[in-house]
Amino acid sequence: MDFATSIPLPTVDARIYPRNGLDILSRAEVARLRDASTGGMHELLRRCALAVLTSGSTSDDPRAARDLYPTFDIQVQQQDRGVRIDLLNAPAMAFVDGELIHGVAELLAAVVRDLAYTAIELGENCGRDLESSEGITDAVFSLLRNARVLQPGDPNLVVCWGGHSINRDEYLYTKQVGYELGLRGIDICTGCGPGAMKGPMKGATIAHAKQRRRRMRYIGITEPGIIAAESPNPIVNHLVIMPDIEKRLEAFVRMGHGIIVFPGGVGTAEEILYLLGILLREENRDLPFPLILTGPTASAPYFEQIDRFLRLTLGEAATSRYEIVVGEPREVAARMSKGLKRVREQRIGHRDSFFFNWSIDIPLPFQRPFVPTHEAMAALDLHHGRKPHELAADLRRAFSGIVAGNVKEDGIRRVEEFGPFEIHGDEDIMQALDALLRGFVQQHRMKIAGDYRPCYRVVT
Amino acid sequence: MDFATSIPLPTVDARIYPRNGLDILSRAEVARLRDASTGGMHELLRRCALAVLTSGSTSDDPRAARDLYPTFDIQVQQQDRGVRIDLLNAPAMAFVDGELIHGVAELLAAVVRDLAYTAIELGENCGRDLESSEGITDAVFSLLRNARVLQPGDPNLVVCWGGHSINRDEYLYTKQVGYELGLRGIDICTGCGPGAMKGPMKGATIAHAKQRRRRMRYIGITEPGIIAAESPNPIVNHLVIMPDIEKRLEAFVRMGHGIIVFPGGVGTAEEILYLLGILLREENRDLPFPLILTGPTASAPYFEQIDRFLRLTLGEAATSRYEIVVGEPREVAARMSKGLKRVREQRIGHRDSFFFNWSIDIPLPFQRPFVPTHEAMAALDLHHGRKPHELAADLRRAFSGIVAGNVKEDGIRRVEEFGPFEIHGDEDIMQALDALLRGFVQQHRMKIAGDYRPCYRVVT
Amino acid sequence: MDFATSIPLPTVDARIYPRNGLDILSRAEVARLRDASTGGMHELLRRCALAVLTSGSTSDDPRAARDLYPTFDIQVQQQDRGVRIDLLNAPAMAFVDGELIHGVAELLAAVVRDLAYTAIELGENCGRDLESSEGITDAVFSLLRNARVLQPGDPNLVVCWGGHSINRDEYLYTKQVGYELGLRGIDICTGCGPGAMKGPMKGATIAHAKQRRRRMRYIGITEPGIIAAESPNPIVNHLVIMPDIEKRLEAFVRMGHGIIVFPGGVGTAEEILYLLGILLREENRDLPFPLILTGPTASAPYFEQIDRFLRLTLGEAATSRYEIVVGEPREVAARMSKGLKRVREQRIGHRDSFFFNWSIDIPLPFQRPFVPTHEAMAALDLHHGRKPHELAADLRRAFSGIVAGNVKEDGIRRVEEFGPFEIHGDEDIMQALDALLRGFVQQHRMKIAGDYRPCYRVVT
Amino acid sequence: MDFATSIPLPTVDARIYPRNGLDILSRAEVARLRDASTGGMHELLRRCALAVLTSGSTSDDPRAARDLYPTFDIQVQQQDRGVRIDLLNAPAMAFVDGELIHGVAELLAAVVRDLAYTAIELGENCGRDLESSEGITDAVFSLLRNARVLQPGDPNLVVCWGGHSINRDEYLYTKQVGYELGLRGIDICTGCGPGAMKGPMKGATIAHAKQRRRRMRYIGITEPGIIAAESPNPIVNHLVIMPDIEKRLEAFVRMGHGIIVFPGGVGTAEEILYLLGILLREENRDLPFPLILTGPTASAPYFEQIDRFLRLTLGEAATSRYEIVVGEPREVAARMSKGLKRVREQRIGHRDSFFFNWSIDIPLPFQRPFVPTHEAMAALDLHHGRKPHELAADLRRAFSGIVAGNVKEDGIRRVEEFGPFEIHGDEDIMQALDALLRGFVQQHRMKIAGDYRPCYRVVT
Repeated sequence: MDFATSIPLPTVDARIYPRNGLDILSRAEVARLRDASTGGMHELLRRCALAVLTSGSTSDDPRAARDLYPTFDIQVQQQDRGVRIDLLNAPAMAFVDGELIHGVAELLAAVVRDLAYTAIELGENCGRDLESSEGITDAVFSLLRNARVLQPGDPNLVVCWGGHSINRDEYLYTKQVGYELGLRGIDICTGCGPGAMKGPMKGATIAHAKQRRRRMRYIGITEPGIIAAESPNPIVNHLVIMPDIEKRLEAFVRMGHGIIVFPGGVGTAEEILYLLGILLREENRDLPFPLILTGPTASAPYFEQIDRFLRLTLGEAATSRYEIVVGEPREVAARMSKGLKRVREQRIGHRDSFFFNWSIDIPLPFQRPFVPTHEAMAALDLHHGRKPHELAADLRRAFSGIVAGNVKEDGIRRVEEFGPFEIHGDEDIMQALDALLRGFVQQHRMKIAGDYRPCYRVVT
Repeated sequence: MDFATSIPLPTVDARIYPRNGLDILSRAEVARLRDASTGGMHELLRRCALAVLTSGSTSDDPRAARDLYPTFDIQVQQQDRGVRIDLLNAPAMAFVDGELIHGVAELLAAVVRDLAYTAIELGENCGRDLESSEGITDAVFSLLRNARVLQPGDPNLVVCWGGHSINRDEYLYTKQVGYELGLRGIDICTGCGPGAMKGPMKGATIAHAKQRRRRMRYIGITEPGIIAAESPNPIVNHLVIMPDIEKRLEAFVRMGHGIIVFPGGVGTAEEILYLLGILLREENRDLPFPLILTGPTASAPYFEQIDRFLRLTLGEAATSRYEIVVGEPREVAARMSKGLKRVREQRIGHRDSFFFNWSIDIPLPFQRPFVPTHEAMAALDLHHGRKPHELAADLRRAFSGIVAGNVKEDGIRRVEEFGPFEIHGDEDIMQALDALLRGFVQQHRMKIAGDYRPCYRVVT
Repeated sequence: MDFATSIPLPTVDARIYPRNGLDILSRAEVARLRDASTGGMHELLRRCALAVLTSGSTSDDPRAARDLYPTFDIQVQQQDRGVRIDLLNAPAMAFVDGELIHGVAELLAAVVRDLAYTAIELGENCGRDLESSEGITDAVFSLLRNARVLQPGDPNLVVCWGGHSINRDEYLYTKQVGYELGLRGIDICTGCGPGAMKGPMKGATIAHAKQRRRRMRYIGITEPGIIAAESPNPIVNHLVIMPDIEKRLEAFVRMGHGIIVFPGGVGTAEEILYLLGILLREENRDLPFPLILTGPTASAPYFEQIDRFLRLTLGEAATSRYEIVVGEPREVAARMSKGLKRVREQRIGHRDSFFFNWSIDIPLPFQRPFVPTHEAMAALDLHHGRKPHELAADLRRAFSGIVAGNVKEDGIRRVEEFGPFEIHGDEDIMQALDALLRGFVQQHRMKIAGDYRPCYRVVT
Repeated sequence: MDFATSIPLPTVDARIYPRNGLDILSRAEVARLRDASTGGMHELLRRCALAVLTSGSTSDDPRAARDLYPTFDIQVQQQDRGVRIDLLNAPAMAFVDGELIHGVAELLAAVVRDLAYTAIELGENCGRDLESSEGITDAVFSLLRNARVLQPGDPNLVVCWGGHSINRDEYLYTKQVGYELGLRGIDICTGCGPGAMKGPMKGATIAHAKQRRRRMRYIGITEPGIIAAESPNPIVNHLVIMPDIEKRLEAFVRMGHGIIVFPGGVGTAEEILYLLGILLREENRDLPFPLILTGPTASAPYFEQIDRFLRLTLGEAATSRYEIVVGEPREVAARMSKGLKRVREQRIGHRDSFFFNWSIDIPLPFQRPFVPTHEAMAALDLHHGRKPHELAADLRRAFSGIVAGNVKEDGIRRVEEFGPFEIHGDEDIMQALDALLRGFVQQHRMKIAGDYRPCYRVVT
């Protein structure tokens, strides 16, 4: 599983015949898919495919895989009964005795499916309104449905957030929580990378086996910018690639029936701010949404710091929307299980669907894609006096920019060129932010390997 | 099963929660569906739903069911997890001890699904090109895929055409052929009414049971104009409602891997002309397409007359595309079985899909909806000297108009108002046509019950 | 399907690899099976196998099939993973394009399974007590369980009795009743021959298809003496061969949750007497056991005669245990459906199993095999004054003997050699018996084809 | 999961309704089962049930669980549709929010099923010959078939042996090997306790999930004497309780298509001696039987010592039957995968079944139960000059006795009463034996917790 070497790694050529949707396409669709995959989409496809094929790798450097497999290529071919995916010089690590691991083949087909859907159905000239809040939500719904992850059935999907770079104690804890969730018949959705995104799924897999569950779901939701750094573990049996980080966040919030947050870094902070910014809106006041922050006993200080930061920036009211539970996996699962029952009752009461949370109000500022240029980062307005959800929205963007500067290819390049981002705001917020970020650095939550050089600078 | 009474028949109210697609709709889709079903589409929906609910009835009068259930209504409601279908004063005959027969419930959901798809996805402002040949084929494909009848798997779908009003001997013969097809693992597709549309499915059901087949397909393809007169038998486990007769014919030809024609009336003649008009095109010369005309021994004269008519109108070349087999069900099935193998080989050789015959060339005149007004009927040009497929196209339209005059509501009304259609052409063609039609009348192939009053007049 | 010709009929050789139990045998079991099938059991195996392979044939002459396929043979071979069945010169009618119909292959495996079980597990030296009532019941249970027809699940198995030789009206009626039962989710069990044993299964097959039922059961219970005359229709998807007529009757009564009796001949009379003899016992007084005698309107006189005979011989009390419904298939099914609910409640109340009626008391005289020699027939004591169930037992034996004289090979031979059986009894009983039997003759219920020469003589 | 406390632990009462065989019993069988479970078998049942219910516990003290749950009881009750299992004061650790983990419920039913089968079908008066080699093999086959673990399908079952008390490195290594086996579609069979019995199953579970395998088998084979010390992990989805250690060993050898040996203690040594004693027989010379000894790099010295001991006692020839691979999980799996292919070919060539190795010759001395009394242990004859397989048989018994003295209740009691066992033999064998055993002690392979006091004394 380790491949931190500089010698060219062994590769394999292969052909994949995808099922489940990609096998029943019209001639025009196959042609558009082939065209899209050879045009501007090709590099994106190559990158995402490589992420899936190096799944299980522990690097979070988005360029590592490409350096290791420089000649890798992928082609989508028209075929008698749908499409064929050709792999050239693909990483041998995804193969067992010459045959591609079935789960990896499924993930690969998901990559083609979602990139094609985004390019064709959500692209230019698609006739969709991607500027309005409703239009964006409809696009999120359509993409998830096309990926066949919207299924009838009682609410049992818990989203697990947390860092990809966590310590062994924390990782084992996420497994234990996943195990306790799995014993209670709960399915798992994560951002599909290593660390806190993998542990809960592994734990749940063992528990589901013990409970003799079939048809369990391990859903991974990612986006093109992050997939290279956080390649999906093949336990993921439903992979969805959303077009951007904001739609990915919306997918988490509309599909998940509850959310558990494990220790993490700046990406996790972004997620918490996003969710609380939404839950604190008046419109969502009566909506049950179980949210538990948890970690092993040793992580207590981490959560205290997060808690303080949230109180300072969003106000005391924010604390009513989350619970902090430390060192008790069983208790976390039991509380979540009760929370899901409340969600179920509310959905029935409001005639809302079980598989998509239409009721939750997500305002446009949380949905519009944020591109973290130096100008955009400098323009963030982190001052007291703003409405909590507006401040939350800008804080979310600040964290988002730092994630990009840390692990996303575009962001890394920008910071290499123009130096660290500058972030402006009230002094106490800036100090708290700086303290929080320094903590992440000290706790090695920013990067898996190597020293961390901050990609941001706090300005008061 | 008989309900030829004038007393109001017993009715039942019920609620249906459809599965398979109608349970995962977006809010906007549910709203559009509800709007469509209360607007112009409502009467159409009511009519088609009633046809499904009186399935098994033996009348072919499109207005009979409505007269018997004048207060019947159907509403599509928004529901927590998709849509709910409410039935008011629905025919009790579709229920067993108060519960709707499962197969009927499935057909009902199919009606809603297809009418909604047609109204929303193929309606005005859908952005589709429904004027070009390719655009029409794409619409046919999309509708069939949405109905989930396009499935991977070896070619084994045989379309059975033939009359809804046939005699007992002929009916038993269609059952025997269906039985022999079923023994050979062949699935059945028909126009889903009584007579030759029901017999093959019943026979195949018994044979499939003997062969312990699971997942067998009994596909019925209909259209709004005909469904009321030919209500689908609930053995049909996949019902598709195409928007018009031309798309229905294209669906038969692109989905079926072979076609068997039993004795029938003017509708069957329309189908034969449609198919031969296409197969006789130069572009389709090398395409294998097994086509067998068959019936019990007593039906031999019927096929001789058809054969003569085809030779006269389309030329001797036409005979190379069909076989006539009389009184040998086993032989029919064995030949069809061999024919399917040739189709399979050709599809593989040409990398064509198994589930949709993209290769067959269907020119626009065969695809454009023909509305049988008196003017349009009078304008048909049935003279020698035209290209065979053009003459075939006009003959097809002539028969289509007569079908409408016989059993379709619009057509019946027009003939009641303006008198019989006039059909013009060369004398020998007109005589042959007249002889053919008179034969249908004498053999009671025009209508199931009552005297037949011709809806056409031949003019030389 | 007709094969009443004297020319040698076409035959096929084939190898069958059975599943479901015959594939996981110990070496010793395979050896015993092979030995048994080459020893005394071989002729029996050959005969039963031939019956299955000529299934669908309409002859009821037990020797007909053997005359038509004189060189047919069957061998059980030891095979890597269980057993292999070799067929030599097997009737081509069981094959489709050279391949054995799957359902027939299953029935063939059932024949081997049950004959082997009887020979090995219930044979001499098996250590079982086959002389006591409990021991016999245990043998019946074991054989049924080994045949995998005992399944958990709500009571829904209705046994249909009736003649193999019935007129077309009666046959269509049995189909309609089967259809109405099938619509109500009821499974069918019969004696597995033509006529009233086939109709209900065909009707139920269509209804089950309409209700989209899977896992429906069409159970045929036969015995070596009768299988040749009443070869199982391949709709039967569970065939059981009980060792003798008495165990077959016990299997019907313990497995069935209700019984429907259609018009039939002397075999049907035997079944009615058997059942009423048991139900009239004090021990079974409170046991719900729905029993409906039914046929088309034209069959009313038939049931009146049966009714009179039962009143005369068993007393008025007998009428409390059955209902006669004429010409109303839906009503029959609705009543049976309600009856099954009562059975369900009683089983739960008495903690009896759903799949085997342990509670019903069947006394030893009804269980002991009766061999209809001329002496045994002459010794029957058909006089008034005996206890109803004892008289019923002897009447049952009288009918059983006549069945043997009509269609079983041994019985036919005995009658050919020694003349008709003599049956003694009180004058009114003898007259009623004679009238009943004459009625059967006149109504062609004794034999399917040819004149009937009585195999019995009534003596007062 | 830790429960090393002396406070009474929380308990739960529950009722289980088992499926799969225990639900279709005859009245007599239910009665015998209830009688057996209240008679002498009751204590055994209670003990085995407790082992299953404390599964996941890490103690190997057979009396620990009983001390912790002194009031636990289990009753088998007659029920409408089979049997009901009542649990009183059962360990709460087997329950999730008051409901028994499904996998644990299945294991519990397996315990009842196998103990009942042993008591009833293999008990006194069962008419079986349990003294001959063939009779014993037949009993092993019958019990395994009754447990439904004999399934058709390609050879893919690998037995993993090794210690229950192994260090963390070794445990992780067993997981990795299980993972690599699972990637290759291989199912796992072990002795179902912690350590090397659990690791391969966990690894394979993850790999099977990645390969999207369904119907994977994790078979645990245990016996009443060992189950209390090595309680089955609930990943085990097929549990079989053989009546004694010798039948358990025979089950491993006849079901497994290959065997992997991880580091272990004296029990593992017993298994190796048993297997090599058999494989070294002339009769088994040509039988392919992949056997790989493997562990992490740090375990190399362990295997060198084992290797030396085998050469000394069984001769150089022994080395031809096993391979030692160190530190290469992927290589182990790849070699095993190739070995299975050879097994498949040989079975087909010799027409042997895939699911039970009838061909391997196991002589009676390896089959006869060995009761390790002090006399029996002292009578073992461990001298050079005996035939290798005879010496192997006695060495196997010596190790078996030491296992009993270490972790089996009877053995522990005997040693407490009469002091350590005395073992006699040639000086070099005794020295090698003593060195081997001392090594086990030093490496903590004898017991999971606490100091180890040898239960044996070597006498030359």
